[in-house]
Formats: sequence, C-alpha cells, structure tokens
Amino acid sequence: MKIVYKIWLDNKGKAFGEGPYELLKRVQETNSLHRAAHQMGMSYSKAWQLIRIMEERLGFTLLSRKVGGVSGGGSRVTPEAMHLMKRYGQFERDTGKAIERIYRKHFGRP
Amino acid sequence: MKIVYKIWLDNKGKAFGEGPYELLKRVQETNSLHRAAHQMGMSYSKAWQLIRIMEERLGFTLLSRKVGGVSGGGSRVTPEAMHLMKRYGQFERDTGKAIERIYRKHFGRP
Repeated sequence: MKIVYKIWLDNKGKAFGEGPYELLKRVQETNSLHRAAHQMGMSYSKAWQLIRIMEERLGFTLLSRKVGGVSGGGSRVTPEAMHLMKRYGQFERDTGKAIERIYRKHFGRP
Repeated sequence: MKIVYKIWLDNKGKAFGEGPYELLKRVQETNSLHRAAHQMGMSYSKAWQLIRIMEERLGFTLLSRKVGGVSGGGSRVTPEAMHLMKRYGQFERDTGKAIERIYRKHFGRP
C-alpha cells in the first residue's frame, strides 16, 4: 500500500501543476518548447495549447518567443514564470514530505 | 487562485479515498448500500462494484450483508472498515491542514 496524490494551482481550471512545471524546466534547459515537448512525449501543438491555457489562468506570460534569426528562434522562460517555478518547486517538496509524514503517522511505514 | 488536490491509498490501483470514505459513512448512517449510493447520485451496481474492487485491493471485507429478513436486509460496515475510516478521516484532516499551511507559506493567502 502507498499514498498517491495530485495537486495543482487552480483558477477556474488547472492553472499550474507538476506537468507544466516539468515542461517549463525543460524549456529552461533547451531554450525550445519544441524540444521540451518532445522530451516529454507531448506534441508541440499540445504543449503550446497548455502554455496558452496556463497563461490565461495565471494572468501572466510564461514564455517569450524569438522568431527566426541566426539561431532559428526559440522560447525563453519569463522572469514571472521563473518566480512561479521556484515557489512551486518548494511547495511541491514541502507537501510531498508532509504527506509522507502524515501517512506514516496514521498508516505506519509506507 | 486556490490549491486543489486528490489523494488516495493505492495498491495496484486506487484502494481507498475520499469517495469511498463518503460512501461508507453513508452506509453507517443508513445501514444500506442502496441508500448510501442513492444519496451520492451513484447507481447501486456502481457502488457495489466500487466496494468489491476496494475490498480486493485492501485485502479485507468492508461490508457485511444481511439478506432478506423482517427488515429487508441491509449492509453493515465491518470493524476493519471502521478502523480504516477512522485512520483515513484523521489522515485526510491532517493533510488538508498541512497543504493549506504550505500553500500559504509559498503563495501567500489562499
């Protein structure tokens, strides 16, 4: 037996969670929504749609896009998105630890 | 913005969570899986199927059934199920409080 949970920020629908967090982390590493989506086995159009929906629900821009140029364009995570990612990452770690602790308290060793 | 979460005990699939907990509480109150399911807008066959799957994953019986008789039969929550419900209820309250506290810590007031 184990404990499983899903947790997300919500503003009239899912606004941010583990999947989007992973996606943005990969955009940071690759500077490309294309590559980030590919790494997660997600189509580019689905990733792009996800980003748009989150931006609408969060009320700020997550990615700035460069079109064309020598490097062939790419995506950058905005400062607002970086701030959100930092807080979300800490939130996720803290909740994970707390849930495991409370689970052990009531149900013994996991 | 708010935080939303789903949490459940898992043993090769969902073994127990908020929905089953609610269902068993209503069986305790009504002594009837029929009435409990009806109160939750669930068909009797769906509720019965849910109970069977949980019993298999948990490894013990949740309901004892009386068939017929003067009172027309009914369902009783087993002592093992009562013990689980007690622990799960405490677990749920503790996690709810912890998640709200951690959310406020990282994202300000909910």
